[in-house]
Amino acid sequence: MTLEHISTSRSYTGEQQVWRHESTSTGTPMTFAVYVPDHAPGTKLPVIWWLSGLTCTHENAMNKCEYKAACAKHGIIFICPDTSPRGPEVADHEEYDFGQGAGFYVNATQEPWAAHYQMRTYVEDELPKLVAANFPVDMERQGISGHSMGGHGALTVSLRNPGRFRSTGAFAPIVSPLNCPWGDKALTGYLGEDRADWREYDSVALIKDGARIDNCRVEQGTADEWLDGQLKTHLFTDACSAAEMAVDLHMHEGYDHSYFFVSTFMADHIGWHAELLKA
Amino acid sequence: MTLEHISTSRSYTGEQQVWRHESTSTGTPMTFAVYVPDHAPGTKLPVIWWLSGLTCTHENAMNKCEYKAACAKHGIIFICPDTSPRGPEVADHEEYDFGQGAGFYVNATQEPWAAHYQMRTYVEDELPKLVAANFPVDMERQGISGHSMGGHGALTVSLRNPGRFRSTGAFAPIVSPLNCPWGDKALTGYLGEDRADWREYDSVALIKDGARIDNCRVEQGTADEWLDGQLKTHLFTDACSAAEMAVDLHMHEGYDHSYFFVSTFMADHIGWHAELLKA
Repeated sequence: MTLEHISTSRSYTGEQQVWRHESTSTGTPMTFAVYVPDHAPGTKLPVIWWLSGLTCTHENAMNKCEYKAACAKHGIIFICPDTSPRGPEVADHEEYDFGQGAGFYVNATQEPWAAHYQMRTYVEDELPKLVAANFPVDMERQGISGHSMGGHGALTVSLRNPGRFRSTGAFAPIVSPLNCPWGDKALTGYLGEDRADWREYDSVALIKDGARIDNCRVEQGTADEWLDGQLKTHLFTDACSAAEMAVDLHMHEGYDHSYFFVSTFMADHIGWHAELLKA
Repeated sequence: MTLEHISTSRSYTGEQQVWRHESTSTGTPMTFAVYVPDHAPGTKLPVIWWLSGLTCTHENAMNKCEYKAACAKHGIIFICPDTSPRGPEVADHEEYDFGQGAGFYVNATQEPWAAHYQMRTYVEDELPKLVAANFPVDMERQGISGHSMGGHGALTVSLRNPGRFRSTGAFAPIVSPLNCPWGDKALTGYLGEDRADWREYDSVALIKDGARIDNCRVEQGTADEWLDGQLKTHLFTDACSAAEMAVDLHMHEGYDHSYFFVSTFMADHIGWHAELLKA
């Protein structure tokens, strides 16, 4: 596995790096961002995986999330993958919520998507192995979080892998693709009509089917324009209640769905991860 | 003068707003971003004007500069104008460093630029009047800063208007368009071959010609890829020394020209403005 260095910029007391590699999961080049705080040679640092939302590349969170100061302060590596395979040979769709930039962190089974849209394997297996082999991460101290479609990704990756992450967060997550128009469209396309096949990609269904995780925190703005029609946070908290799984829901009065919301609460969110990752 | 509201998002303890208006200076619609911290009704707040660099719109600093936390903390309004007129009827150039996105904060005298490229009047006169009339700003407490081409803008606007700004900052400014390739190209295009006409748009020449300001601070990364060939910070500090004008130069070891540099030192930079603006 060859890593191609794209860029490094000093940022706060650390380095914001960007790398590219040929992914065996997607069969395409994949680019990801890694923030590495200054650290003593030989030290391994806790890591937070950040999964981004619809339309995003590795760049959006890197530029807009304001995670770097907190990661520098707490000594945490922060990784932002892309949200889908990309390229002229990769199937696409003219709308923003399906196709390139909208991989939904699933392994597609339907044509023409199955050839490259293997984002579950990419973020769950391939990228963690690649990062563990090439960066000073302590894989015993992992946290995960994400925004919107990436919040869905963070919750479902963690619920399918209980015990892997010490902390699981999400900002304004799509909690149930089975129960919203974004999910209907994308998962029908990637996985087909049999909705039983969707359940492993739905945080509410995973909990109903028995999955449990510790240390789960959700940040949600009350003025989020997608809250009622797409995100439906209550479906997740209801499922957690029924399953007696603790979730720490932070409702933020007046904040919308944008990175202006995410960045506002990022330092506090990372501080919460840090307490668990450094305990 | 009609202001068209584009967007408002809650961000930290304040609002990130975007507005558009028909500019009489440029003869085009102009868009700008305004961050307004929460404040008691009737209160007027100090203001920092931020001039952005090559290729930027009002959005880049809004998304990448990480000014909002510090402005919320100190109660300072932060304004990001666009860097040029835009639109299909506006003259343009195929390269990034001239034409749309590269107005250099001058009033162009040469065709085809003169028709719309009146950015000096826009940022120096029109926008301040518009903002004073429509936002809760205390025009007795203004600061100005900017990045790269916008650092040039901030220094030259302030040097031409001594006493208007209590604090004048710049990140990685182009200090002398008379002495760098970016300046040669753009100012020849906008102002013509007579370099005497450029002097009011050159911070070094303005100081040599007698302009003085108090409370001037420059942030500069030592790993800035444009430092030697374009920015030439020493020309500014040399001119200040010769003129016995104080300048507080902060060299930052290992930082480049990017927003990763700017965002790292923005909170500290705003803190410095705040001390002067709130004194």
